[in-house]
Amino acid sequence: MAQKSGLVVGFDLGGTKMISSVMTAGLEVLASHKQKTNAQEGGEAVFARIVETIAASLKKAGVEASQLDGIGIASPGPLDSVKGIILDTPNLGFSNFPLGGRLEKELGVPVVLENDVNAGTYGEFVRGAARGFRHVVGIFPGTGIGGGLILDGKLFRGATGNAGEIGHMIIQTDGPLCGCGQYGCVESLASRTALAKDVAALAGSGDSPCVIAKAGTNLKNYRSSIFAKAIDQGDQQVERVVRRSARFLGVAMANCVNLLSPEIIVLGGGLVDKLGDWYVRIAEKSMRDHTMAHLTEGVKVVQAELGDGAAIIGAVCLAREALKAR
Amino acid sequence: MAQKSGLVVGFDLGGTKMISSVMTAGLEVLASHKQKTNAQEGGEAVFARIVETIAASLKKAGVEASQLDGIGIASPGPLDSVKGIILDTPNLGFSNFPLGGRLEKELGVPVVLENDVNAGTYGEFVRGAARGFRHVVGIFPGTGIGGGLILDGKLFRGATGNAGEIGHMIIQTDGPLCGCGQYGCVESLASRTALAKDVAALAGSGDSPCVIAKAGTNLKNYRSSIFAKAIDQGDQQVERVVRRSARFLGVAMANCVNLLSPEIIVLGGGLVDKLGDWYVRIAEKSMRDHTMAHLTEGVKVVQAELGDGAAIIGAVCLAREALKAR
Repeated sequence: MAQKSGLVVGFDLGGTKMISSVMTAGLEVLASHKQKTNAQEGGEAVFARIVETIAASLKKAGVEASQLDGIGIASPGPLDSVKGIILDTPNLGFSNFPLGGRLEKELGVPVVLENDVNAGTYGEFVRGAARGFRHVVGIFPGTGIGGGLILDGKLFRGATGNAGEIGHMIIQTDGPLCGCGQYGCVESLASRTALAKDVAALAGSGDSPCVIAKAGTNLKNYRSSIFAKAIDQGDQQVERVVRRSARFLGVAMANCVNLLSPEIIVLGGGLVDKLGDWYVRIAEKSMRDHTMAHLTEGVKVVQAELGDGAAIIGAVCLAREALKAR
Repeated sequence: MAQKSGLVVGFDLGGTKMISSVMTAGLEVLASHKQKTNAQEGGEAVFARIVETIAASLKKAGVEASQLDGIGIASPGPLDSVKGIILDTPNLGFSNFPLGGRLEKELGVPVVLENDVNAGTYGEFVRGAARGFRHVVGIFPGTGIGGGLILDGKLFRGATGNAGEIGHMIIQTDGPLCGCGQYGCVESLASRTALAKDVAALAGSGDSPCVIAKAGTNLKNYRSSIFAKAIDQGDQQVERVVRRSARFLGVAMANCVNLLSPEIIVLGGGLVDKLGDWYVRIAEKSMRDHTMAHLTEGVKVVQAELGDGAAIIGAVCLAREALKAR
């Protein structure tokens, strides 16, 4: 292999948008480029757009693909990170898509694929809110609830590479139906989608005039900011629904504490960004109320610091490590 | 330090009985000695009995304490294994008891303390049902439900040393009150104690004549064998209660799979010993029914192989590792 440049592209592949950043060895961003994902156009169109987006970011940075040490991609899972295959992500239009191999062929650069929540948790561990800790649980409530684990100072992937599915932890066996087909997963009780269901019902029955004016009863309009605004405007019904969901999140956090005894839990994602410290503290209190004192005493609960940037930083760092090991 | 003999005492400290085994470097048992714990006599009396039991096993083996490399103790938790302190175990009469230090002073031999379920899981990993795997979850339903984790080929202890509290995973937030003070922990739904509650109620209301003849309605009489015998004799009510508890156990197993993506789950302890493969398969089916297909496909669910011996073997192996690192 040629002399390393230290340059790596970090790529955040989301259901709505994709971002490519060219980063130096010191994790400085030389340039970024962003595009809509438009997954409805299908996997091949999304793939072409990924290639374009990477090329555009390289052009802005004045870097040739051949100068890169590698590309780290943060993608929704499930995926096979060893083989570089996205297994099944309906919201990207991919099914058993060999994204790693296809990109390597197209660009002539080694590609490392990682679950986006794992990458985000790793980014917070390397440069964000979890710097300096060895045992970290990352939980990201948004449309779904993603999770990532740093155990003994390393990203923990388990046997399949897909460990960390905190969102599908069942905390109420007879709870609401979840998108995964189970009942009572924390995602079915505390995600933005779960909140939207409950708040839309309030709005529809006339109990939340502020929400109905903003979002109607169409769940698609329920962005995390809707809940934050309603609460700011004194809507106590919405506040009750959000508090309840934060308490359910706290139960899942408690289960993680009892099982893994982490030092710190990092909460990020859309709901946390919009609802902020108020929300984090409700979840934290519920966690402490639902766990064993000797395990929970020293556990810190903090808000993620890096936002969208976490996944890109994590993808870059994990790509470097994987390429070193290859 | 003198030349190592390879001889280590493995000690299983239980609420009912204690066992001391003198083991060779090849994990052969030279001799064992067993005594009742009689915890009601208080911590000092239990400590004196531990010393006696170790001495008796050494005498049987023809080994002097000074020949030992160390002593590995498997004790109920919570404990501080770094400082060798048993924090709080009402059923042993210990509270903040420096068992490690006291024994080292008494016998002049280094002592390593480990949670009994961790030691049991480690024993199954080294010599039992989980040999050759890297990611192992051990679950031991009995009076309570203990858990132990082997992650990346090592016993995982987390930040406090007390990770693995699978029994207190909340799977039904409005479930029955648990001994830990929470509601709906899997221990409150699937332990022997939980089963005893339900079956005693059946017996009390005349719905389980076979059980009432054997155990009455006093929960203390409900050993795991009572359930097994009732089911063997065709008691369908008891069978329903046991099946339900096994399914709850499967939900906790599913949560472990989603979170940790293990290769194998080892089930042991009193209930599993008495109810056997029939019970294990019900729990396994529930696990597969409650988890994500891509994480659960390859997961094996097996019965522990070493019984009580697992904790002693684990304690000996973990003591060797800890002493090497000291």
